[in-house]
Amino acid sequence: MDFKSLIGHCKEYGFIFQSSEIYDGLSAVYDYGPYGSELKNNIKEYWWKSMVQMHQNIVGIDAAIFMHPKTWKASGHVDAFNDPLVDNKDSKKRYRADVLIEEYAEKIEAKITKDVVKAKKRFGDDFDEAQFRATNQRIIDRQAQIDDALGRLATAMSDGDMAGLKSLIEEFEIACPASGSRNWTDVRQFNLMFNTQLGNIAGEEGKLYLRPETAQGIFVNFLNVQKSTRQKIPFGIAQIGKAFRNEIVARQFIFRMREFEQMEMQFFIQPGSEMKWYDYWKETRLKWHKALGTSDDKLRFHDHENLAHYANAAVDIQFEFPFGFRELEGIHSRTDFDLTQHQELSGKKLQYFDPELGENYVPFVLETSIGCDRMFLSQVSNALQEETVPDADGKDSTRIVMKLHPALAPVKCAVLPLLKNKEELTTKASEVFDMLKYEFNCQYDEKDAIGKRYRRQDAIGTPYCVTIDFDTLEDDTVTIRDRDTLEQIRVNISELKSVIGEKVSMNRLLEML
Amino acid sequence: MDFKSLIGHCKEYGFIFQSSEIYDGLSAVYDYGPYGSELKNNIKEYWWKSMVQMHQNIVGIDAAIFMHPKTWKASGHVDAFNDPLVDNKDSKKRYRADVLIEEYAEKIEAKITKDVVKAKKRFGDDFDEAQFRATNQRIIDRQAQIDDALGRLATAMSDGDMAGLKSLIEEFEIACPASGSRNWTDVRQFNLMFNTQLGNIAGEEGKLYLRPETAQGIFVNFLNVQKSTRQKIPFGIAQIGKAFRNEIVARQFIFRMREFEQMEMQFFIQPGSEMKWYDYWKETRLKWHKALGTSDDKLRFHDHENLAHYANAAVDIQFEFPFGFRELEGIHSRTDFDLTQHQELSGKKLQYFDPELGENYVPFVLETSIGCDRMFLSQVSNALQEETVPDADGKDSTRIVMKLHPALAPVKCAVLPLLKNKEELTTKASEVFDMLKYEFNCQYDEKDAIGKRYRRQDAIGTPYCVTIDFDTLEDDTVTIRDRDTLEQIRVNISELKSVIGEKVSMNRLLEML
Repeated sequence: MDFKSLIGHCKEYGFIFQSSEIYDGLSAVYDYGPYGSELKNNIKEYWWKSMVQMHQNIVGIDAAIFMHPKTWKASGHVDAFNDPLVDNKDSKKRYRADVLIEEYAEKIEAKITKDVVKAKKRFGDDFDEAQFRATNQRIIDRQAQIDDALGRLATAMSDGDMAGLKSLIEEFEIACPASGSRNWTDVRQFNLMFNTQLGNIAGEEGKLYLRPETAQGIFVNFLNVQKSTRQKIPFGIAQIGKAFRNEIVARQFIFRMREFEQMEMQFFIQPGSEMKWYDYWKETRLKWHKALGTSDDKLRFHDHENLAHYANAAVDIQFEFPFGFRELEGIHSRTDFDLTQHQELSGKKLQYFDPELGENYVPFVLETSIGCDRMFLSQVSNALQEETVPDADGKDSTRIVMKLHPALAPVKCAVLPLLKNKEELTTKASEVFDMLKYEFNCQYDEKDAIGKRYRRQDAIGTPYCVTIDFDTLEDDTVTIRDRDTLEQIRVNISELKSVIGEKVSMNRLLEML
Repeated sequence: MDFKSLIGHCKEYGFIFQSSEIYDGLSAVYDYGPYGSELKNNIKEYWWKSMVQMHQNIVGIDAAIFMHPKTWKASGHVDAFNDPLVDNKDSKKRYRADVLIEEYAEKIEAKITKDVVKAKKRFGDDFDEAQFRATNQRIIDRQAQIDDALGRLATAMSDGDMAGLKSLIEEFEIACPASGSRNWTDVRQFNLMFNTQLGNIAGEEGKLYLRPETAQGIFVNFLNVQKSTRQKIPFGIAQIGKAFRNEIVARQFIFRMREFEQMEMQFFIQPGSEMKWYDYWKETRLKWHKALGTSDDKLRFHDHENLAHYANAAVDIQFEFPFGFRELEGIHSRTDFDLTQHQELSGKKLQYFDPELGENYVPFVLETSIGCDRMFLSQVSNALQEETVPDADGKDSTRIVMKLHPALAPVKCAVLPLLKNKEELTTKASEVFDMLKYEFNCQYDEKDAIGKRYRRQDAIGTPYCVTIDFDTLEDDTVTIRDRDTLEQIRVNISELKSVIGEKVSMNRLLEML
């Protein structure tokens, strides 16, 4: 299913709404609706239980979004978490200078492509594209322009040369996409952290940041956690929580939002053992994704080309989103960078006494960091499909179905009286709902014909539909319809809890790991 | 247990840490540690399942913290969510003007109390306090001062008269508690919402607020939710999420924090039916608290004396915290205030077509709103106790025990090998841990003597300890120790899952409702 239809489906069926839609929306912020919030909760539960509950040596925390501002000085975010911005004086629109230059290069690339397509049309099957590109002077010149622009962009970015970026914009005569004007301000560094102000302290002293990552909440609590739980290295601290980034260009639905949720685990280890644990967590995390039934060819590792200042090894688990392979989770060997920085700025020791080695040291850290919203998007885009199935009369018909893993599905079981206007059926169905509701999330639905109700449950990913019909009133049996196979089996009401319960159980999913 | 010891216990045992403690802390912000985060998660699960999963006609959402700024204009927060602040020019400290005046009155009250205590000492048993207060001129004068101060404070507050507050501070010669100086700025209204700035929009247009309550996320999504789930009135929308208030005076540990978590449900009803639903939700919510085993005398209803501008009836469920009875949860009849406001400011209809009445209307709203952190504090303070129990030799000894409901306890079961240095025992214990970990949160602990480990589990509220001893190696039986009764029973390992599982199950707690 294409991306636009997916977004429409998410809205229509109560998974995701644009934030503050009645006020024409707040850009790059989204709200999770009834089925979306259940799916997101299930994703979080799967992650939390697999990380914390499954491991003797991993514990969780829930640190606040607000932290002491020195935290972000220590982590490097105050000084180095910047984007280069430029305003157009006529349109008053603000842009990322690097993106403007990249888009300039893309435009030239598009011209090349146009020439190639034209030539292909003209020369037909005999056309040799590589040769054409290598010999056509206009293309050669344009390719040189691109290489020049991107090369100088990379230099200016790595030097933090804002004046250089401005010169490039002027030299390339880049115009504002909104107004067409070339009347630009200077390019300046813009910090991506949202900030706010404590009411009881005036000025800079009272400046607070909304955390741009959850990891630092773990680092500053490292010793408190280690001491109160008496953990020995290696051990991990896991956390799920919101983070905020003041992105200028935020795109692609819930893939890049200004407010998002992270699921991070920091694993504290002996210095020198990081590559062993790097390999271990790479495999462990990939297995976690695959246990959900995500097809192998939609997941891949992607090594980082440029390492962040705190890392000595880093890899992404990428997922094939509707817009291509993109980062879903990162596994980073963060060395002792963060703890050492906090030690220096706070003046407090963040060391561990290792009884095996008989010495104190600042532990190294191996991080696994996954975007909860991206995980959500990966599951929906993996699961949502349009397919042809036989309808009640055996004829071909199309259905939209969300083939989520049953343990993640928002509703585990829909309880459906065959007819709405037969009180014996609706009463019985309500009884079944009331029995099952203690075990897992159920939905009672009596509106519309049964076939339409099945389709509706398909669309929200409900793995099982239980139908109460006239036979039920005779012998206490019901039909269970399977979302994926469309098979229907007849079971006694007393068996429902265990038959469905086993199939939708989070615990059974955890056993797959 | 006194409040200070409770706070110390929460830190020592990994329930709650001061935020950014290594940087000397961030005031009125706290982090939940390993056991705290599990307990908090269990409280949220209990609330969510009881509200959403148990009801055919209640669904959940998870709206973002950021919302369109017009939301807060509509709700009244931009204009009326203020505290009157005043700065001392010498100490540069900031205070709530009303609190300064209240403290002035409290000081006079303290002088009266001192006189009364003195007189009581002098006159002994014959002392008639009421008569003394009514006849002693100094006390009469002082009481008049108090009444005057509080009366004029109330008038100035209800008139929003900032100059009047300033005059009172001057007239009463109130000095800065920090510097002793009377050099005050004017009193001004200070909005309690934290604000920040979107990066891509300059000036007021880009101003964003951190939501001061989660309720508005439900109101703006009302129609999207109703349509995508096809709910009919009466129906509810539930939400758990963070909210932020820029409190000048934030006190009492996690009771009043600048960043906190709410669990709110808005129930949409026919206009005119609000008192029926008000009574229904009062009783339903009280039952929810009592199902946890909280003693009846620690919970009470407290009607609001002054109704908020949006309410036509409001009651608190109060809990007896270590510092007295305080609000734990509020049940509010919010009328159609919020939806009507949003309708006016957005220009979009927020109406419901009622098929029963055959007409359109803006629904009325019945709200239940509980502070997740307050609920946490109520459970810990209700559960934490020091008691005398027989030790291994049958002698009296003291223990600190947290008698949390088993379904809320952070760790359900500790698996303890009798001795650490016997590999047969530790291997067997690890096997038991690995078997149980799929069912509920367990902890493996081999450090220290078994009695000390039991005490440690008592302190974090673990309802069951399973001990693996030499008999286990013979016959596969283990001891289960009950936290509250201290009774030990011997069961086969194969029975552990079901014996403990039944007792700690959230589903069984839900059946109590």
